[in-house]
Amino acid sequence: MTTGPWMHTLVSRLYPLCRSITGDGVRQTLAIVGEHLPLTVHEVPTGTPVLDWTVPQEWNIRDAYVADASGRRVIDFRESNLHVVGYSVPVATRLPLAELREHLHTLPDQPALVPYRTSYYAPTWGFCLAQSTLDSLPDGEYEVCVDSTLADGSLTYAEHVVPGQVEDEVIVSAHVCHPSLANDNLAGIAVAVGLALSLENPYYTYRFVFAPGTIGAITWLARNAQRIDRVRHGIVLACAGDRGSLTYKRSRRGDAPIDQVMEYVLRDRPHEIREFTPYGYDERQYCSPGFDLGVGSLTRTPYAGYPEYHTSGDNPDLVSPESMVDTLEVLREAVAVLDRDRRYVNLSPYGEPQLGRRGLYDSLGGRSDAHDAQLAMLWVLNLADGQHSLLDTARRAGLPFTSVAAAADALLAAGLLKDAP
Amino acid sequence: MTTGPWMHTLVSRLYPLCRSITGDGVRQTLAIVGEHLPLTVHEVPTGTPVLDWTVPQEWNIRDAYVADASGRRVIDFRESNLHVVGYSVPVATRLPLAELREHLHTLPDQPALVPYRTSYYAPTWGFCLAQSTLDSLPDGEYEVCVDSTLADGSLTYAEHVVPGQVEDEVIVSAHVCHPSLANDNLAGIAVAVGLALSLENPYYTYRFVFAPGTIGAITWLARNAQRIDRVRHGIVLACAGDRGSLTYKRSRRGDAPIDQVMEYVLRDRPHEIREFTPYGYDERQYCSPGFDLGVGSLTRTPYAGYPEYHTSGDNPDLVSPESMVDTLEVLREAVAVLDRDRRYVNLSPYGEPQLGRRGLYDSLGGRSDAHDAQLAMLWVLNLADGQHSLLDTARRAGLPFTSVAAAADALLAAGLLKDAP
Amino acid sequence: MTTGPWMHTLVSRLYPLCRSITGDGVRQTLAIVGEHLPLTVHEVPTGTPVLDWTVPQEWNIRDAYVADASGRRVIDFRESNLHVVGYSVPVATRLPLAELREHLHTLPDQPALVPYRTSYYAPTWGFCLAQSTLDSLPDGEYEVCVDSTLADGSLTYAEHVVPGQVEDEVIVSAHVCHPSLANDNLAGIAVAVGLALSLENPYYTYRFVFAPGTIGAITWLARNAQRIDRVRHGIVLACAGDRGSLTYKRSRRGDAPIDQVMEYVLRDRPHEIREFTPYGYDERQYCSPGFDLGVGSLTRTPYAGYPEYHTSGDNPDLVSPESMVDTLEVLREAVAVLDRDRRYVNLSPYGEPQLGRRGLYDSLGGRSDAHDAQLAMLWVLNLADGQHSLLDTARRAGLPFTSVAAAADALLAAGLLKDAP
Repeated sequence: MTTGPWMHTLVSRLYPLCRSITGDGVRQTLAIVGEHLPLTVHEVPTGTPVLDWTVPQEWNIRDAYVADASGRRVIDFRESNLHVVGYSVPVATRLPLAELREHLHTLPDQPALVPYRTSYYAPTWGFCLAQSTLDSLPDGEYEVCVDSTLADGSLTYAEHVVPGQVEDEVIVSAHVCHPSLANDNLAGIAVAVGLALSLENPYYTYRFVFAPGTIGAITWLARNAQRIDRVRHGIVLACAGDRGSLTYKRSRRGDAPIDQVMEYVLRDRPHEIREFTPYGYDERQYCSPGFDLGVGSLTRTPYAGYPEYHTSGDNPDLVSPESMVDTLEVLREAVAVLDRDRRYVNLSPYGEPQLGRRGLYDSLGGRSDAHDAQLAMLWVLNLADGQHSLLDTARRAGLPFTSVAAAADALLAAGLLKDAP
Repeated sequence: MTTGPWMHTLVSRLYPLCRSITGDGVRQTLAIVGEHLPLTVHEVPTGTPVLDWTVPQEWNIRDAYVADASGRRVIDFRESNLHVVGYSVPVATRLPLAELREHLHTLPDQPALVPYRTSYYAPTWGFCLAQSTLDSLPDGEYEVCVDSTLADGSLTYAEHVVPGQVEDEVIVSAHVCHPSLANDNLAGIAVAVGLALSLENPYYTYRFVFAPGTIGAITWLARNAQRIDRVRHGIVLACAGDRGSLTYKRSRRGDAPIDQVMEYVLRDRPHEIREFTPYGYDERQYCSPGFDLGVGSLTRTPYAGYPEYHTSGDNPDLVSPESMVDTLEVLREAVAVLDRDRRYVNLSPYGEPQLGRRGLYDSLGGRSDAHDAQLAMLWVLNLADGQHSLLDTARRAGLPFTSVAAAADALLAAGLLKDAP
Repeated sequence: MTTGPWMHTLVSRLYPLCRSITGDGVRQTLAIVGEHLPLTVHEVPTGTPVLDWTVPQEWNIRDAYVADASGRRVIDFRESNLHVVGYSVPVATRLPLAELREHLHTLPDQPALVPYRTSYYAPTWGFCLAQSTLDSLPDGEYEVCVDSTLADGSLTYAEHVVPGQVEDEVIVSAHVCHPSLANDNLAGIAVAVGLALSLENPYYTYRFVFAPGTIGAITWLARNAQRIDRVRHGIVLACAGDRGSLTYKRSRRGDAPIDQVMEYVLRDRPHEIREFTPYGYDERQYCSPGFDLGVGSLTRTPYAGYPEYHTSGDNPDLVSPESMVDTLEVLREAVAVLDRDRRYVNLSPYGEPQLGRRGLYDSLGGRSDAHDAQLAMLWVLNLADGQHSLLDTARRAGLPFTSVAAAADALLAAGLLKDAP
């Protein structure tokens, strides 16, 4: 199967699972991802302090419904896990509709869609349903059942590492806590898997983090605080499969290398660059001021930017194989630039070195149509002062990064460059 | 009386007085201002060295006129003090019109208006009149009288101080040396009084300086040189009442906090921002390179920008109560921002602190309509690195300063912030 | 003869000489230049190491042709030295047209023009001709003769120095290696001569370098490496006479003083400012990262920017006296600014000094039409903090540089300024 259909199949397979920030849905998700990538799965016990937070109790759910007087399920977890507010406490009771309403969530402006709601840190229960369904419910008493458990257990996250030539790391982070929502974030998971599978002997070590949003990233950061300075670049992947064009949200730093690389690889595609905001996905944590990592976020239509966002409309039909392939392709281009970008020092910085003597320059002079390859060498030599990266050089020269990188390779082979200190 | 009419009444009451850089007109002006505000009046003796200057002799005038052969006053100080060149030396003589003309100043392009002229540092005398009046004077001999005195005395200026929570100061400076010119600068004086009366327990100490232009500001600077580093911000108020829109002229630094604050509070009104120039009002002195204070200048139509500028056309009708209220309102907004703007350090900078646990965050997740208050808290936490001010945060977040300040208050109360060192 | 025709006559006189990077054509060129300017001519022996290069063998040529079976010269060096590839090795042979073609260079898209080609560092021979001539050659055998010598000798370059008040130098560099090409670079040579003749007691020492391109500049840099820190500013002059408008190419630094000065003097003329590229003329060498001198390049139509570039179309008709005069005028304006630009420190920086007392300020106040001269003095005083140059002041004030310089002169005379350290 080619990459696009393969990623879409993965999205569809993960779709029915009831994920949350803890519990078996996350484990099942990671088990399926683990069929494609070797994963190291971490279980962090309830109560573990992580930065300013504490790992919460584990939530699992077997069934949930609201049934009418006749016993018919009018809201049914088995139809869609979105029907239950995430982390709902167990309940078995009968209530008149008026009281039940206080536990029901709808989208009056999108009456056919079921919203996605959670209540991780305030113990309550609730159901989500279409406004049209609510409108059709007659008064009367209803049976309410949430067959869930909230108990000490653990928070589950996983890593996949592709070793690089250096220990410096690039992290690719995708949240795995949303239940039946396809674009947010099963598409991000699928594209991350596709990227991991495409890496061959990279320069940097690439670490893929599949963790629940917020608390998962916080847990990962807490457990990796001592080695966080290895993280040189990173990207948070979300909403990677809808049919909109790509959006890159800069890191808090605004001009980190990842920001420059993403802007560069997106330059010839329809795209939007957004400034950092401390709202959105787990870039919130990676870019908190104490860490301030060079981590941006790549999405197609961004956070909360499409009408199906956080509703039952975010199903596998919203995600297209072609869009996921496009997201993956941009990431692969970004990896190619990130991995090859380097700063050099010209070892013959006084005047131009004689390239012709080294076979690097046309012997016939006078022509005004200098080849790109020669121009690229002159640019690399001129800017190889330890300050300018190859990407800086490509942008300033208006030459493709690949030409500039090839020029640097030729000059390295000729002994004219060394790595910048 | 409401603020607008009250300020306009003050302008009208001050209008007839014959002010100059010294003399009883200044004292009478300060006495009237002192009916509204407690003032400390300073008298600096003639001959006192002040920076590169020396306090000049004091000038006072009782009467002045040019009379024709019949004894009729054709130019009369009693009609308008603008008719006499400021600091005219005493004279009592008879002259033919041809010789008299050398002492007469008109505006040929504005034939109905009387110009404002002074000669502080070159001893001479002169009269100002409408070109149309001059054109109507028949040849012949005229009697000339200037009943003035130039004698050792003092230069007078006054201060009003509103003590703040800190000794760091904001100075508000208005020149008080112009005779019957309403917008320049009785409106500035009236708005300064209005601002002083509106201050209640401010953070900064606010010092209002009512002093003659140039020599007065120089005298104030000379006498306060040892404590000038207390002056953190300042604004020169002039032309505060005409019907044009507001103009802010930046300090010499160009991006001092006062510049940022004024640009921020003006953003939603018709306004113009001008770069600093070493010409205009007393910002020339405060922004001389040795002091280089963060002092900008707020006017409506700026210096020399309206046809009535420095003419008899600048009378109380040129000034509107509504315009003075608008100027005052902008200043009050600026004070509110200046006084609350601060830099903080996030005490929980690694990841986001758990706001929900502290009652600062909605417990129901999944919704995409984050409240401004929550957004503001996230922004403050993210930028509380000791480098960004609350105003920086408000501008970057696109949130109202008041929301950002309220967020900082909530975070301070929760123990999540401390003052930046 | 006025300057324009005089410069054009010099171009026409130099045009027929067969210049290359070494040889008698360069010596004859410098001898003619030397009739106008005293030159120090340097001969650097073949084999001398210069930076990464080595001075090559000297090339001289007496005759060269391709003759048909009847003995008629179908390509003749005596008609134009462009017909022979520069540095062609000697050859005397007979070849069929098919084999001869491998040594022939044409411009198929400009069939009437003869291209300019060289092969300095790869030993070969070749002829350049119009495509139309080539098309007219019948098959058959041709006699080929290149009567040249490549032998140990020397590389020739020359300097003309106009001593300044300081030892800091401005270099003006023009390449002298192109054969019969008028705009590139006989016009540059002529304008450089015109500029040298116009200098009278300059502030900086002006050093004019007439050297072959690339290897000549490299040789000059190699021999002056120990004193290169005297070079404060510089300009490479090329293509100085075509009818296009002026183009200034910034130094590698991008904002060196020469860049600021050239942009300033060009501001009111049609012109283009280009960013630095490591391709073009000898700015490539002066701006190599080890030297990184403040050297820009002034041309009219830039490098490779006109259809006659490096072809027989670049003849004296392409060059106009008026254009050369215009280039010269801009250079003279640039020299005037460069030579007068200085940073000062205000000796009375607290408040404005009392200019009136020193006779520098109008005594009659109240008028809003301050004279430019007074404004210029206020600006100079305000920005004389040791950081801002007079050019900075002129640009920020929007006043002519000459007014600002005159103000600085007056303030210096009044003892109000000193040189910045």
